[in-house]
Amino acid sequence: MKQVAEETLNGLVKKLVEGDRRSIARCISLVENDSINADPLLRQLFPKTGKAYRIGITGPLGSGKSTLTNKLTAYYLGKGMKVGIIAVDPTSPFTGGAVLGDRIRMADVEMNQNVFIRSMASRGSLGGLSKKAREAADVLDAADKDIIFLETVGVGQSEIDIVRASDATIVVLVPESGDSIQAMKAGLMEIADVFALNKSDRSGADQAVAAIDSILNLRSDKSWRPPVVKTIASRNTGIEEVDEKLTEFKSFMSANDGFQKRRMESLAERVDQLITKKLYREFWTEERRSFFKKNLDAVTDYRTSPYDLADRLIGHFKEEK
Amino acid sequence: MKQVAEETLNGLVKKLVEGDRRSIARCISLVENDSINADPLLRQLFPKTGKAYRIGITGPLGSGKSTLTNKLTAYYLGKGMKVGIIAVDPTSPFTGGAVLGDRIRMADVEMNQNVFIRSMASRGSLGGLSKKAREAADVLDAADKDIIFLETVGVGQSEIDIVRASDATIVVLVPESGDSIQAMKAGLMEIADVFALNKSDRSGADQAVAAIDSILNLRSDKSWRPPVVKTIASRNTGIEEVDEKLTEFKSFMSANDGFQKRRMESLAERVDQLITKKLYREFWTEERRSFFKKNLDAVTDYRTSPYDLADRLIGHFKEEK
Repeated sequence: MKQVAEETLNGLVKKLVEGDRRSIARCISLVENDSINADPLLRQLFPKTGKAYRIGITGPLGSGKSTLTNKLTAYYLGKGMKVGIIAVDPTSPFTGGAVLGDRIRMADVEMNQNVFIRSMASRGSLGGLSKKAREAADVLDAADKDIIFLETVGVGQSEIDIVRASDATIVVLVPESGDSIQAMKAGLMEIADVFALNKSDRSGADQAVAAIDSILNLRSDKSWRPPVVKTIASRNTGIEEVDEKLTEFKSFMSANDGFQKRRMESLAERVDQLITKKLYREFWTEERRSFFKKNLDAVTDYRTSPYDLADRLIGHFKEEK
Repeated sequence: MKQVAEETLNGLVKKLVEGDRRSIARCISLVENDSINADPLLRQLFPKTGKAYRIGITGPLGSGKSTLTNKLTAYYLGKGMKVGIIAVDPTSPFTGGAVLGDRIRMADVEMNQNVFIRSMASRGSLGGLSKKAREAADVLDAADKDIIFLETVGVGQSEIDIVRASDATIVVLVPESGDSIQAMKAGLMEIADVFALNKSDRSGADQAVAAIDSILNLRSDKSWRPPVVKTIASRNTGIEEVDEKLTEFKSFMSANDGFQKRRMESLAERVDQLITKKLYREFWTEERRSFFKKNLDAVTDYRTSPYDLADRLIGHFKEEK
C-alpha cells in the first residue's frame, strides 16, 4: 500500500466532486481495501457530504430487493436525478465471493452515466463491512449523487447495521408468512420506515399486509407509522408509490429534526469507532504483541487465565503513559 | 448491582463445581446481566474449565436444531453423561423476546437432574452475546458437564461467532435446496465439522447430500472432510451416527492438537476482547464523554469532521498519560 501524495489526493477529490466515474471507483476501492489513504480521503470528503438522500433496502433472500432497487433507480434517473447504489453482500465471510448470481443488473441502468453501482463483499472482515459501506456512501455523496441506495442481502445483524446508517429504510417482504416472521425476529420491523410487500400478486398478500400491520402496533416509536406498499417490482408496479412514501417520510423527518437526530447518532457512533480503532492501534505495539504471544501458551494450559494476561498487558500500557 | 463479597463468591463456586442447579443458574445470570461479579467469577472458574466437549449446533430456521439437540441430549444422558445446553437466540435485538415458541423442550429432558438448559436472548446488546454464550459455557464446564451444546437460531454472523467457540460444530440442513444455498452463503459450509441433513425422509434428500458434497470440495481446509449424516431427529433416526461422527472428529482433533489450536485461538480472542473493553473503559472518562457530547453538534453541522473530533479526544488521552 502506497501513500498517495497530498496533491494527488486533492486532484482525485476534485475529479470525484465533479462526478468522474473512475475517481468514484478509485475512492471506493481505497475505502474498501482499508488503504492508508482512506482516512485522509474521508477527512477531505466529509464537508462535501450530507446532501444525498440515503435509502437502505433490506429484506429476506429472494424478496426481490435488487429488482426493486433497479426499478427505483430507473424511476429517479427518469426524473433527472443522480443515483448511487452500494450493494452489500455480508454473507460468505469465508470464501469472499457471492454464491448466487443475484447481482446481475439490467443493462439499461448500468449504462446510464448518472448511476454508479458498486458491489461490496465482506472479504473475511465482516465487522468492518457496515463501516465501509457507510464510507462508500460518503464517497457517492461527495460525488454529488442525489439518491444513494444501500442494499443488503439477507436479514442478519450486519445488514441491520448497514441500513441503520441510512436516512430511510425500505424493508422488502413477500407474501409468504415464514419470511415475515423471520423478518420480525431479525428486528426488521423496528428498522423499517417503509415496507414494500413485493411479489404482491402472489396469494396471501392481503394476509401478509394484515400481519405486518398487527405487528406494527407493537412498535415502541409511535411518531411515524411505516406504510406498507404493495409492489410487483418485476412489472414496475408500485414504484411511484414507494417514492411517494419515501418523500412523505423525508418531509416528516425534516419537520421533526429527525434526519439531524439520526445523523448525529450515526456520527457519534463513527467517532466512537474511530477512537476504538486508534486506541487499539496504540495499544498493540510490537512489544506487547510479542508478550501476548509468549504468554498465550500459559493460558491454553490453564496455568494463568485470560483475565490475568489482560490485566498484565493493560498494566504495562498504563506504566508507559 | 451489588458486589458479592469474596467469601460468598467462593461459596457459590464451591456449590457450582458440585453441580448444584441453583448455583449454575445464578452464575449464568451474573454473566448474562454483565454483573460486576461476572469478572471475578469467571476468573475463579477458568482453571476449572476445559474438560467438557463443547458442541455448536446451528443451521437455518426450521431445520430442526432444537429437536436434534434434544435427541442428542437424551442419548448422552442415557449413557450416564451430564449435559448442558445454551440455546441462544440472537435475533430480535430490538424487542428482546423470541417470536417463535421454538424453545419448547421435551419434559423428559427438562426433568433429568443431569441436564441443565438455559436460553439466552440478546436484550439489545447483540455484540456481547457470543461472549456471554461462551462464558455461560464456561460456567457449565466448571459445573462438571461432559457435553455442552451451544445451539443458535438462524445463520447470521453472530450465530457463526457463537458456534466458532465450540470444539465441534454440527450444521443442520434440510433437503430444500434454497436453505442449503443460503447456508453456504452464510459461511456455514466453512464452519461445519459434521453436517446433519435433518428431515431426510423428505424428497430431495439425496440431491441435497450431493450438493453439500460438491461444495465441500471447495473447502480450503482438506484435513478433515465433514461427514454428512442423514437424520430424522423427530423419529430419533441418525442420532447414534451423529454421535459416532462427533467422536471420530474428537479423535481426529486430539491426534492433531486440533482442539488445543482451536482453544488457543478462542482464548487469544478473549484476551483481545478483554483488553479492548478495558481500554474503552479507561478512555471514556466523564470528562471526555462530556467533551464528546459538547462537540458532536459541530460534527453534525459539518463544521468539523468525525476524524478531527476523534483526533482531539485521543490527543487528550495521550496527554493524560
